[in-house]
Amino acid sequence: MDYKFLINNLNLNKSQKVIGTDKGLAKIGDGIVNLAYSVAKSIYLTNNNQNDKIIRTGKKVSKIILGSALKNADMKRFAKTRANAHDLADTVEAILAYVWLSNKMTLSDIINFLVDNLSGDLYNRAEEIEKVTIAFTNLLKYIKKFLPEN
Amino acid sequence: MDYKFLINNLNLNKSQKVIGTDKGLAKIGDGIVNLAYSVAKSIYLTNNNQNDKIIRTGKKVSKIILGSALKNADMKRFAKTRANAHDLADTVEAILAYVWLSNKMTLSDIINFLVDNLSGDLYNRAEEIEKVTIAFTNLLKYIKKFLPEN
Repeated sequence: MDYKFLINNLNLNKSQKVIGTDKGLAKIGDGIVNLAYSVAKSIYLTNNNQNDKIIRTGKKVSKIILGSALKNADMKRFAKTRANAHDLADTVEAILAYVWLSNKMTLSDIINFLVDNLSGDLYNRAEEIEKVTIAFTNLLKYIKKFLPEN
Repeated sequence: MDYKFLINNLNLNKSQKVIGTDKGLAKIGDGIVNLAYSVAKSIYLTNNNQNDKIIRTGKKVSKIILGSALKNADMKRFAKTRANAHDLADTVEAILAYVWLSNKMTLSDIINFLVDNLSGDLYNRAEEIEKVTIAFTNLLKYIKKFLPEN
């Protein structure tokens, strides 16, 4: 899989803001975030239940969670100025799409990273929000090295 | 990437209806459909414009399109009896997740198949609906061979 040509023009004038505010990247990233989290949550719940039950599930990751993760990872500078929660979430999605399209992380890498960084009882909604925020915060911190420094 | 264990229990009593009506599979499949189509549409539009412009975009594939594709591919028997449009779409998503989790098609295979089967002017919404229905119909026909016969 090589779709790197889809980001050729972004790499001409590579900057944190150019990547973090690209609307098309955010749309592609929305799909990456939701698919990766659905599979990661399924694996996590399957690996962590008493009855060896196989659990398949899916869940759209809320904009609030993604926005908080961006702030926690100290990466708000990738977003546009005066960004609202929706804009911050779009920035997380754009960044993830950029890293994926750059072949720095495969979908499988992202899924496995999330599985390894999930914890606690994801059936408890408040706890899920807290733990998923942590997982995405860690993911953002990890991928910083694949992103431009300015 | 091997997440095949997530479908182990489905393979014990493998049937078209067991796969096609699994709610968890449908949730995972929703992510696959939307990510694959977003990337496929971006590639198609990038390859087919006069100005060598790179286009990144994303689009949730409507339930109507997926339901029509299931009917056109003559695969309604995978869905539950008296299925409405929403149920039919869920069945398409479940089937795609099953094929992906079985490692019969990678995400990249699905994206490339869609790109090869898209045509026409996707900026025209009526035409997009028609052409995307055709692409998903062809995809379903193609993956029949990976699915149980009953």
